[in-house]
Amino acid sequence: VNAYDGVVAQERQHDDARPQGFHALTRGCPSRTVLEHLTGRWGPPVLVALMDEPQRFRQLGRRVDGISEKMLSQTLQAFERDGLVVRQASPGFPSRVDYDLTELGRSTATQLYSLICHVEQSMPAVLHAQQAYDSTRSATQ
Amino acid sequence: VNAYDGVVAQERQHDDARPQGFHALTRGCPSRTVLEHLTGRWGPPVLVALMDEPQRFRQLGRRVDGISEKMLSQTLQAFERDGLVVRQASPGFPSRVDYDLTELGRSTATQLYSLICHVEQSMPAVLHAQQAYDSTRSATQ
Repeated sequence: VNAYDGVVAQERQHDDARPQGFHALTRGCPSRTVLEHLTGRWGPPVLVALMDEPQRFRQLGRRVDGISEKMLSQTLQAFERDGLVVRQASPGFPSRVDYDLTELGRSTATQLYSLICHVEQSMPAVLHAQQAYDSTRSATQ
Repeated sequence: VNAYDGVVAQERQHDDARPQGFHALTRGCPSRTVLEHLTGRWGPPVLVALMDEPQRFRQLGRRVDGISEKMLSQTLQAFERDGLVVRQASPGFPSRVDYDLTELGRSTATQLYSLICHVEQSMPAVLHAQQAYDSTRSATQ
């Protein structure tokens, strides 16, 4: 428990929603690592791509523009370890492995997707604010 | 429009929620920069801290553990430019400046906070999955 943790936990009103003493905004908490998997460079596009259907490694790689095999492998492995993604081997020959969201992965992806959509929907207002900010700045300089 | 953008936009079923052609998962889209402000190292703790009440710069600095003046200043400036945070100067002497969420900032912070709470609430299941993953790995090596 560091200073931020203590102060925020005592002060803010939202705390009833946070069980078990996990604090994803606090350094060293394991929940922070999971949040970082979700908000890093490749986590969001991989999770969102998996929302549609189970996919093979190469399908996913084509879907997520710009991702290398190595990064896709690392991203999937982290999500698999976190229990958000599962590898499913189908019977048959040659065997086929699909990556799918677990129930936990789907609920998490849905939350993340909701944030992403909110950002996208906010963009007209954001661009307007950015223009106003920039024009104020250039007027005073 | 790059490959990922095109493929995902056509294929996935969630697209009706995404207006105006902003794609926060696509390189070069301005919405991506905003998402990065929200998911970077300091964006989440600063936004969540502001959910409770307007705060002065130094209050915020004490609240967000480990943040430097420079990073707090940069984070607030980015959010102000995006239209998520507003500086309010109160009358009186010495004048007092508070940082507060705009309406857009509050709705965005609420979405982000919802994701954070979801991650924290999922941690028992995540830790369980991580242990199972690690023990399978060590058993096969």
